[in-house]
Amino acid sequence: MTKARAMSSPTIKHALSVTRASDFAAWYQAVVSEADLAEESGVRGCMVIRPWGYGIWERIQTLMDARIKAAGVENCYFPLFIPLSFFAEEADHVEGFAKEMAVVTHHRLKGIDGKLQPDPDSKLEEPLVVRPTSETVIGKAMARWIQSWRDLPLMVNQWANVVRWEMRTRMFLRTSEFLWQEGHTAHADEADARSETMRALDMYRDFAETALAMPVIAGEKPENERFPGAVATYSIEAMMQDGKALQAGTSHYLGTGFAQAAGIQYQNQEGSQSYCHTTSWGVSTRMIGGVIMVHGDDDGLRCPPMIAPHQVVIVPMLRDGPEDEAVIAYCADLAASLGAVDVFREPLRVLFDRKPVKAAPKRWSWVRKGAPVIVEVGGRDVAGGNVSVLRRDRLYNEAGKLASEIMPREAFVARVGAMLEDYQAVLHGEAQAFLDANIRRGVGDLSALAAAFAGDRPGWVEVQWSAPTGAALDKVVDWLKGEKLTLRNVPLDAAPADGPCIFTGAPAVERVLVGRAY
Amino acid sequence: MTKARAMSSPTIKHALSVTRASDFAAWYQAVVSEADLAEESGVRGCMVIRPWGYGIWERIQTLMDARIKAAGVENCYFPLFIPLSFFAEEADHVEGFAKEMAVVTHHRLKGIDGKLQPDPDSKLEEPLVVRPTSETVIGKAMARWIQSWRDLPLMVNQWANVVRWEMRTRMFLRTSEFLWQEGHTAHADEADARSETMRALDMYRDFAETALAMPVIAGEKPENERFPGAVATYSIEAMMQDGKALQAGTSHYLGTGFAQAAGIQYQNQEGSQSYCHTTSWGVSTRMIGGVIMVHGDDDGLRCPPMIAPHQVVIVPMLRDGPEDEAVIAYCADLAASLGAVDVFREPLRVLFDRKPVKAAPKRWSWVRKGAPVIVEVGGRDVAGGNVSVLRRDRLYNEAGKLASEIMPREAFVARVGAMLEDYQAVLHGEAQAFLDANIRRGVGDLSALAAAFAGDRPGWVEVQWSAPTGAALDKVVDWLKGEKLTLRNVPLDAAPADGPCIFTGAPAVERVLVGRAY
Repeated sequence: MTKARAMSSPTIKHALSVTRASDFAAWYQAVVSEADLAEESGVRGCMVIRPWGYGIWERIQTLMDARIKAAGVENCYFPLFIPLSFFAEEADHVEGFAKEMAVVTHHRLKGIDGKLQPDPDSKLEEPLVVRPTSETVIGKAMARWIQSWRDLPLMVNQWANVVRWEMRTRMFLRTSEFLWQEGHTAHADEADARSETMRALDMYRDFAETALAMPVIAGEKPENERFPGAVATYSIEAMMQDGKALQAGTSHYLGTGFAQAAGIQYQNQEGSQSYCHTTSWGVSTRMIGGVIMVHGDDDGLRCPPMIAPHQVVIVPMLRDGPEDEAVIAYCADLAASLGAVDVFREPLRVLFDRKPVKAAPKRWSWVRKGAPVIVEVGGRDVAGGNVSVLRRDRLYNEAGKLASEIMPREAFVARVGAMLEDYQAVLHGEAQAFLDANIRRGVGDLSALAAAFAGDRPGWVEVQWSAPTGAALDKVVDWLKGEKLTLRNVPLDAAPADGPCIFTGAPAVERVLVGRAY
Repeated sequence: MTKARAMSSPTIKHALSVTRASDFAAWYQAVVSEADLAEESGVRGCMVIRPWGYGIWERIQTLMDARIKAAGVENCYFPLFIPLSFFAEEADHVEGFAKEMAVVTHHRLKGIDGKLQPDPDSKLEEPLVVRPTSETVIGKAMARWIQSWRDLPLMVNQWANVVRWEMRTRMFLRTSEFLWQEGHTAHADEADARSETMRALDMYRDFAETALAMPVIAGEKPENERFPGAVATYSIEAMMQDGKALQAGTSHYLGTGFAQAAGIQYQNQEGSQSYCHTTSWGVSTRMIGGVIMVHGDDDGLRCPPMIAPHQVVIVPMLRDGPEDEAVIAYCADLAASLGAVDVFREPLRVLFDRKPVKAAPKRWSWVRKGAPVIVEVGGRDVAGGNVSVLRRDRLYNEAGKLASEIMPREAFVARVGAMLEDYQAVLHGEAQAFLDANIRRGVGDLSALAAAFAGDRPGWVEVQWSAPTGAALDKVVDWLKGEKLTLRNVPLDAAPADGPCIFTGAPAVERVLVGRAY
C-alpha cells in the first residue's frame, strides 16, 4: 500500500495506545471508545451512540436532509413494525436478506412463578417484524396515495431506526440496530425513475466528498451485489486507510416489481392503468465508521469541520486563583466573537468547555475526539490579548512537540473561517491522494490479481471484465471469495474497456473494482 | 361550555363534512385525514405520519431541540431493545405501566411447510422488550459514565420511537408506536435535580405557549397520577375545544430510586460515595393532537405559523394558455421575495405549489391543512402587480364568502411577517380566552361538582382539597371515576387554599383541577 499519509513518527507519544500500523482493527475500536463516539450497550448487537458521535450524526442529518428536501422529497414516518404477511408477499425480498430479523410475538409481560416473562395469553395472531427496511409498508401507502399521473412523481423519505439481526457486530459498521434515512420514490416511467436513482447516487457522492471530505467511487453494483428485487443497484465506495472498501450509500432502481407486489398503479393522461417504476436509496450511521477510518490518525478522530458538532473548542487554563475570573471572562467573550463568524454558510459552532477538568487532559480529550481547532487561553494570553491555537491536522511540529501557535485574538477570529475551510480541504486532499495512489490498473491475469492482494493493505484493483451473469458470475464470485475479495462496483467514470476479461477471457465490456471490504 | 370561539355559521358551507359542534370525535378524525396529517398504516396501532403532519413534528423538534441544547443537555441514542431482565430489576417500574409492551422472542424468519414464520431455532435466550421508555437502559449507561462530582450534572436527551401496546388507539393521541424526546439527567443532590425538573416543566410550558400558541396549566400531578417510581410528577395540561384536558408533557423528579436500581453513584469532593438524584421529562407526537383540538375549526386545521411547515403557500391560477407563463414567473419571483423575509427570527417558509391540480381544489386543500396564509395569483393580479391574500383565521367575510384580500404585491411582502406574528398571537389569544372562560372555581361540594360536569363540554373545575394519600386518595379517585372525571394537576400558580377539602371536609392545603381527559 502506498503510504500517501504521514504515519506515526517514532519520536512522538501519541494519544491512543494502539496505532493504525500495528493493528488497524484495534485502532478503530480505540478511536470509537476514546473519542467518546459510541460504546457497547449491554444489549446484544446494539450500541449506545454517545454525544460526540450522535452530534456528528445530527450534522450528517442536517446537511443531508437539506439536500433531500431541495430535491422535492418529503419526509414522512412509517411504522416500526411490519406484519409478517407483508414479507410473504415479496418472496424475492425475503429470499435475499430479510431472514435475520427481530420478530415480535407477544404484547404483554407477566409475572409467572415469580419471574417476569411474555404472557402466553398475549401471543399475537400474526407476528410483527421490526423493519429491516420499509419497501413493503411504504409500497402499500404509495398504492393508496397514487391514483393518477398528477400524483407522480411521489417522493418520500424517512429518518428511522432499522434492525437486521447480526451475529458479528462492529460499532457503526455492522450493528443489529442502526439509524438511517430511506428514500422511496414512484414514477410514471423507467426514464424518470432511473433519473431519480442517479440523482440520489450523485447526491450521496457529492455529500461524501463535500460534507465528509471523503472521496468515493460511484458506480453500479454487479448483479450478485444487487438489492434483492432491484433491477439495478448503485453504490458509493470509500477507501479506508487499511485499503479496504466501505460501501457508504446505495441507490436502487427497482423497476415495476415492487409496484406490482404492492399494487402501485396510476392512470395516465390517456386513461389507462400502468404500474409505477420505483426507486429507493439510503445512507446510515455506517458513514461515521467511514469518517473514522478515512480521517482518523494515531491521536484519534480528525472530524471534518462541516460535520464537527463543535468546530472550535476553547479550553481555559485555570489555576484556582483570583486571575481565573479574567480568563473565564476572556474566553466567554472570545466564544461570543467566534459564534458571530459564519463558515460554510452557517454560524460557526464554538464550545467554551467549562467542565471542572484540568486543561491538559481536557485538551487531549478534544484531540482524541477530533475537534478541528482547539484554543487554549491562560493568564498570559489574556494579558497579551492572544490565544494559543492548535489545529488538529497539524498537531506536532518537526521536533515532535505540540504545534500550538500563539496569535493575536483578533487575528484568530478574522482567520478562523478560512482555517476551517482549509482544514476541510486538507482532509479531502489527503484522502483523495490516498485513494488515487491505491487503485491499481493494468493487472492482466488472475494470478497477478491474487498477487496484487498478497501484501499488507493492498487497496483496490480495477480490472476489465465481460460482466458475466448467472452461473458464469457465480464462478467469478467464488474464485474471488477464495481470495477474500469482492466486486465493489463498476465506476461510472471508468475508461471504456479495451481488452479481454480477466476472468473469462471474453472481450471485456467495462471495468470493475475488486477489493477487500467491510 | 362558554363558547369563547366563533363556531360555524349556518350560512357557510365548510370544508369538512363534520363540525366540532355535531361530533367532536368524528371532527378530529376528519381533520387528521383531510389535512393529510396521518392515516392508518394497516399495522395494528401504528399510524403513518404524512408529510404535512411530519413537517409539523419536524418544526416541533427543531424548536424544542434548540431549547434542550441551550440548557446544556446533550443528545445521544440508546438501543431500541431492552433485555427483559432490566425490567425485572425495577419492580415498581414494571408494576406501574410497563406490562403492555412489544416483546421480541425470535431473530429469524424461515419458510416452514411453505409458510414464512419465526424460526424455532432462533428463539432468544432472553426476550427483548421494545422500549416503552428508556430509564432502565439509560440508567445503566449513567452508572458507567458517572464517577465523580466532576461528571455532574449529566444531562442527556434522545429523540426516538417508543412502543406501548394499546388496545384502543386514536391517531396522535394514543398509538402503540409514537415519536418523542426523553430527557434524562443525574445530579449530585435533590435541590439540583428538582431545579432541573422544574426547568424542563417550564421549558414545556413556554414552548406550548410560544411555539404552539397553546396555553397550558403547569402543575404537579397527584400521587395516583405519578410516573411509577417517581417522587414527583409535573405536567402541562391543555384544554381542547370539547373541554377535555390533554396532558401535553411531563417532567419527573425521580429521587434516588432509579439511581439505586441502576447503580448510579458518584464520589463527592470529600471522597465518599452517594447515589445521584435523577430526573426524566418528555413530550411526544401527542402534541400534534393537541394543536388540532385547540386550533382546528370546521374547515380543518389552523396551524400556528411557528410550526407550520409552509407559512405561506402560493397557488397559481392557470388557464392552460399562453398567459400562464407570466403567472408562473410572477409566482416564482414572489416566492423568492418571500423567502428573503425573516419571521420569528427564521427565514419565512414559502411554498410555490406547482402541482398539476386546479386552483380551487388546491386552495381548499391548503385551507384544510391550515397553511397560515394562502396567496392566489391569476393573470389579473400579474397585470395589476397584486396578490390575492387569504388568512386562514379570517376565512370568511360577514356575508359568508371567502375573505380574500387583493393587495399590492410589495405591500404584502412588506406586511407578511407582521401578519404571521399577528396570526400566531390571535391563535394564542383565542385559546387563552377559551381556557380562562372554561375553568370554574368556587364549586363547594361533590354534588355541585358532579352537576358542573352534567352539561355538554363542561371544561374544568378547580377545587380545594386536602391532598389525601393512599387509601383516602383511592376513595377520591374512585368517586371521580364514577363521574368519568380525573384529577389533572395542582397548578403552580393557583391561589392558596382557604377552606375545606371538597372530598374529605378536612382543611384544604391546595387547589387541584378536575376534568375529563384524553
